[in-house]
Parts: sequence; C-alpha cells; structure tokens
Amino acid sequence: MDFDGFFQSSLDTLKSEGNYRIFADLERRCGAFPQAGRHDGTAMQDVTVWCSNDYLGMGQHPDVVAAMVETVQSCGTGAGGTRNIGGNTIHHRILEAELADLHGKERALLFTSGYVSNWAALSTLGAKIPNAVILSDEKNHASMIEGIRHSRADKVLWKHNDWRDLDRKLHAVGDRPKIVAFESVYSMDGDIAPIREIVEVCEAHGALSYIDEVHAVGMYGPRGGGVTEERGLAHRIDLIEGTLGKAYGVVGGYITGSAPLVDFIRSFSSGFIFTTALPPAVAAAATASIRHLKASSIERDRQKANVAAVRARLDREGIPHLANESHIIPVMIGDPVKCRMISDILMEEWGIYVQPINYPTVPKGTERLRITPGPLHGAQEIDHLITALASLWRRCAIAHAVA
Amino acid sequence: MDFDGFFQSSLDTLKSEGNYRIFADLERRCGAFPQAGRHDGTAMQDVTVWCSNDYLGMGQHPDVVAAMVETVQSCGTGAGGTRNIGGNTIHHRILEAELADLHGKERALLFTSGYVSNWAALSTLGAKIPNAVILSDEKNHASMIEGIRHSRADKVLWKHNDWRDLDRKLHAVGDRPKIVAFESVYSMDGDIAPIREIVEVCEAHGALSYIDEVHAVGMYGPRGGGVTEERGLAHRIDLIEGTLGKAYGVVGGYITGSAPLVDFIRSFSSGFIFTTALPPAVAAAATASIRHLKASSIERDRQKANVAAVRARLDREGIPHLANESHIIPVMIGDPVKCRMISDILMEEWGIYVQPINYPTVPKGTERLRITPGPLHGAQEIDHLITALASLWRRCAIAHAVA
Ligand SMILES: Cc1ncc(COP(=O)(O)O)c(C=O)c1O
Ligand SMILES: Cc1ncc(COP(=O)(O)O)c(C=O)c1O
Repeated sequence: MDFDGFFQSSLDTLKSEGNYRIFADLERRCGAFPQAGRHDGTAMQDVTVWCSNDYLGMGQHPDVVAAMVETVQSCGTGAGGTRNIGGNTIHHRILEAELADLHGKERALLFTSGYVSNWAALSTLGAKIPNAVILSDEKNHASMIEGIRHSRADKVLWKHNDWRDLDRKLHAVGDRPKIVAFESVYSMDGDIAPIREIVEVCEAHGALSYIDEVHAVGMYGPRGGGVTEERGLAHRIDLIEGTLGKAYGVVGGYITGSAPLVDFIRSFSSGFIFTTALPPAVAAAATASIRHLKASSIERDRQKANVAAVRARLDREGIPHLANESHIIPVMIGDPVKCRMISDILMEEWGIYVQPINYPTVPKGTERLRITPGPLHGAQEIDHLITALASLWRRCAIAHAVA
Repeated sequence: MDFDGFFQSSLDTLKSEGNYRIFADLERRCGAFPQAGRHDGTAMQDVTVWCSNDYLGMGQHPDVVAAMVETVQSCGTGAGGTRNIGGNTIHHRILEAELADLHGKERALLFTSGYVSNWAALSTLGAKIPNAVILSDEKNHASMIEGIRHSRADKVLWKHNDWRDLDRKLHAVGDRPKIVAFESVYSMDGDIAPIREIVEVCEAHGALSYIDEVHAVGMYGPRGGGVTEERGLAHRIDLIEGTLGKAYGVVGGYITGSAPLVDFIRSFSSGFIFTTALPPAVAAAATASIRHLKASSIERDRQKANVAAVRARLDREGIPHLANESHIIPVMIGDPVKCRMISDILMEEWGIYVQPINYPTVPKGTERLRITPGPLHGAQEIDHLITALASLWRRCAIAHAVA
C-alpha cells in the first residue's frame, strides 16, 4: 500500500471541503493577556485573543505563576515517573485534596488532561462493571464518546438535555447497572444542562451520574465548584469531572467522587496507571489557581459583566448569536470556508484572533466563531471587536446583495 | 446496583492478592537528585531514588529548569486552548521542529503524553486506513494495546522480538494494509528489539513500521535519537514515537514521520485535536533538554558506567537480575507480597526507594524490583544499595532455610 499517498489524498479532501486546520502561531504574553503576539512566517503582529479557554486569565495570575516557578525551582521540571513508580509527590496529593474539597467529595484523582480523565474513567467504568449500560447525552464531548466506545459497554444515546427522553431510555434498559454521562456547560453551543431534573431521573433509576464540568469549574458557583455547586447539586452527583487547563489556566484533568469509586479508577484504569505523572510544578500551579478562585469572585463577576456587554452590543448591531446562559458566545456562520475567511480578515485587518470552529469540532453546516469574553477584556477591546464584526457583517451583506 | 459496594469488593480482591497500589509520597529536590524527601504521614525521611524514569536527571538540569521558569514568566502557566483553538504557540512549533530533526524526519507532532501519542496514533491509523491489520509485538506497552483495541482494526500478535514469527504472520495476512508496532527498549525486562531484522521484514512486506522509543530517546545514539539512531535505522522506520517525560525530564509525548503521515494524524486524531495543548513552558523545557542531549554525551556515558557497575556488584553478590543490553536492571522476586515487603524494608531501614513492580504492570509471577541507575548516582550510593540488597538476600535465604 502507498501509505503516504493515502494520507495525502485524505488531506486533500479535507482541504477541498475547507476543513483543513491551520494553527495560529501565538506568543502568549504573561501580564498582557488577552493581548498576544502572532507570528506570520516572518513578521510579528499584536493581536487580541477572543477565543481563549483561559477563561479568567488565571494563566498569568501572579499567585499561579509564582507557584509554578517556585516549584520548578525546588522540585525540577518533571515528575520522573508514573504516579505508582517514583512520580507521586506531595504536590499531587495536595492538589487532589483541594479538588475533593472543591466539589465536596471524599476523593479526587488527577489525570494528564481532561480528555484523558473522561476517556479513562468512562472506559474503566463501562468495561469493568459487569453488564453496564452507558446512557450518553448525544452532544457529549469527543473524550466521553471515545471513552464509552473504548469500554465496549452497551451505549444508549439520549436527546440533548432532554431528561424525559433519558427517563424513558433508563426505563427501557431495565435491571442493569446504568451510567448516565452528560456535561454541565456544552462548550460549542454554550447551553447548560437541566442538571436537577437529570439527577432526579438518575436517582429514580439508581443510575450512576457522571457530569463533565470542564467548561464550568472555576467560573460557576461561589467557590468555582461549577454549575453543580451553583445549583446546590454536587452532593447528588456520583462523579464530577473537570479540567485544570481552562478556567484554572494550567493543564491536567481530574475526577472526584466517593472513596471507593475514585480508588477503583485509580487502581484499574490503564490511562491513569501507565503514564508519567504531571510535573509537580503543574500541580502546584493548579492548586494555587483553585485556591484563589475559591476565595475570589472578582474574576467571575467581571467575566459575567463582559459577556453581557458583548452580547448586548452584538444584538444592537444585529449580529446573530446563540442564546444561552453561559459565558460562551457562538456567532453562527454555517459554512467552513466563510468561517475561515471571516476569521482571517479579523486577524489580518483588525488584529483580532477568533479561531474558526469547523467540522469535526462542530457538525457540518454549523460552523461558527466562538467568542469567550473574559474579565481582562477592556471596554476599548470590546468596542474594537464589535466595530470589526459590524463592519464585516455590512461587507458580507453587500457582497450578498451584489451576488 | 450498589456501585460503591462493587468498587469496594474489587479493591478488596486486589488487596488480598497483594496487588493494591500504595504510592510513595515524595518531594523531589532540584539539585540533589537522586536524593529526595519522602513523607510518611507525619515525618519526612531522606531517600535515594533508584527507580526513577528521569533516567539522566535532566529534570533538574539548569538549562531545562531555566527554560521552564523563563517561559512561565514570559508566557504564563498554560496554553489556554487546544492546538487549534488558541493554544498553539511558537514554543510548540520549535519543539516539533527539534523532534523532527532529532529523528531525521520531515515532521513531528506533540501530544500531552507518550501514552496519548501511542493511543491516538495507533487508534487513528487502525481506524482510518481501510481494511488495515495491526501486527503487534505481544509485549507492547498498555498505551499501544489500548490504541490498537480502540481502532477496532484486526490485530495479530507476534511473538516477542521474533522477526521470523512476524514474517510468517505478515505473509499470512496477505494483500492488506499492514502496520507493525513494536518497541525498542522494553521497559520492564529491559531487552532491546532486533530492529534491523524487523525493519527488513516490514520492508519486504510493504508494512508501515511503528516503533516506540519511549525508554530510549535521550539515552541511545550519539544525539539521543534512540536505538534507531544508534543502529543507523531511523530513516527506515515510518513512525518513531517517544516521550518527553522520561530521559528528557519533563512531560509530553510525540510522533515523528513523513509530512503526510504526521499531518494525517494531526488532522484526524481525536486524542490530538480535542484537548488543551501542553503549557508553552513545558514545550520550552523539553526543547532545552533535547538540545542539551543532542550535544552532550556525558550523561549517557556516566549512566552506562553506573549501570555496568551495579550489574557487576549484583553478580558478585549472587543477586539474580535479568540480562539485557539496556539501562534497566530487573531484580526478579516473583511474588507480589514479597516484592512489596522487600521494597518496604529498603525504604524504612535503608532509605532506598525502589517501587515494587507488580501486576498489571508485569505478568503475575514475574514481580520485580526495577532498578534504574543514572549518571547522578554516586559510588557511595551504589555501595549502599548493594549492601542493602545483599543483606536482604541473606535474610531471605535464612528465612527460606527456616521455613
Ligand atoms: C466538554 C469537554 N470535556 C473535556 C475536554 C478535554 O479537557 P482537556 O482540554 O483538559 O483535555 C474538553 C476540551 O478540551 C471539553 O470541551
Ligand atoms: C513503552 C512505553 N510507551 C509509552 C509510555 C507512556 O509514556 P508517557 O509516560 O509519556 O505517557 C510508557 C510509560 O509510561 C512506556 O513504558
């Protein structure tokens, strides 16, 4: 077989559909976020980042930076082994205790990423609980889908956020161990699940409830414990999963739950066991970030104010965006080539970086710009964004009229 | 279902078999490696680490520490997004160029870990190449096994390191796309694959060759390009996979290969696409480490000398260990409870940390101590290790005679 020929022709297809991905080469600037540099082959351009998942700018918070720097200096750059073989440090232990406390759970377990935590936890539960069925919201993230797939457990999809459909499907499954997997904030539409209703349905059927709070931890709830904290539901969920790479500004993922549940996954999960632990310095930085956001709500409050401001301004300009209760503002384009083009113009002409979101991250036909205002965007930056989008919208409307 | 009851009883079984894992709580000490602190609930004990996969002590190398500290200070603690959405920085690009150069390949691609690189690359290749068969060495690492499993491609196991068996099995597969997956240094036995013969068999059958050099990069070859560099075979292998978390002393994983192959995995692999990028500071530290080990062989030379010294001393004391050509010295125990006991005594009485390696990391009945001498172990530390082991061996022999 001509492997390279096959790879190349698959890539050519992607390109012809407009779905080939080109990464923007950024240079993050600690202290100046959301300002960044962007390399364009030779030159360097100043840009404002409007699509970061460092939602609260914690990646440049002095406490978080200091914790990481100090721990690199005292412990070195890596863990030097898996958690079991030489790679476990007190910094990992302290972070896990902090995470368990954050969600009011007995224990927490750290993974190298949120992706791995979902994949490893769901694949382990689905594979090891005899005769288990996993009921998965149809819009769940790739990491959950792959974990469920990997487990080879039976899988039942339920309609997005539709707890009545979940109830019917749990009923139909009958007397088998049932795991219900869903998210709080869905990252691409920004909608939030009816968690209370889902939990009640889970309780009624004796199902294990599994929630992904990746796009909520740090940002919702008085201590940043996510939507489950905000709504007073954390204690009724069996497993809460989250990331340290978005609002907490570092990298890594985790699960929290009862001691037996967490110890079970710690003991049987391939994706946890057979991999080098996160650097102690990453763990220490994440701990500092969580602690800060447990005590401080300024970041959350400013984020909410800026999200509301951007939404209001978009409305005034007649720029359509999906309504939702979260911090995520999807401006729908509906075509991959147009989406990339608008993004390119924003970057080149306006110094605004909003990555086009195309397939496979969103379904074909729902391509979008995904705008994530944070607490550090200033009034002028918001003005500039709205001016740029409004100008582009007018230009597109004109192009439309002419065509 | 009583989920917690099920989890607890599974854990109880593990405990009764002696396979329940207890992590040592370490405190790495930058500048003093392989010395470390070990927390024992309340007290702190000084220990010498003899089982680290920070094989060359690069996790405390001044250049690597400085690169990480400087980049945290200039770029912050995290990447702030996936590679595609806001998380791509020049530090990732530079590292990928460095890795491609290391292995003499057109391109490289970074993953959050070596585990994820194997899992994601193999699952993508196996799933996307129509009608593919993956021929996997029977002792391949969990991350490769899970990647192959996830791909749902047909899988054929071949006898460990047996290229004649591989040849027969490739022949039997016939005219389908074939991927041959194996490792250079096998981490638990320390044996090295007959790479030249395997490559020749792959070439004869037109199979894509995939090698895991996780336990070799940084340590073998004049520039640390692994056993494939040492043996002048890198250009004949299609895909070389490695880690940044062991000899390079940081964290992360990667693949290298032709531009179409790497771009294909970049474009289609769920485990690459849907996850936060490694922090820029991690990438910068890894780059510094690779650059240092491309230019310096002192660490490799000292490691080899210390490995030879430990082996010779073990032989003199009549302590059995697996013969191999690598830096890994497995001292076989053959029982999980005994293995844990010996490890506990070494820690408590001698301040020596060697984690017991039990199932599922190794097959039941082959439990062992896995000793990894590095360039920073001194003559006194070697003396102390050998004295401790010799004393334990005498004690066990006596216990044996009595029992
Ligand atoms: C809903 C959801 N879960 C999990 C993840 C993975 O988390 P991480 O980036 O830490 O791997 C993401 C995105 O990256 C996500 O959007
Ligand atoms: C052979 C082999 N491949 C891959 C891995 C995974 O690499 P990482 O620790 O970077 O996840 C390991 C061990 O951890 C390994 O032993």
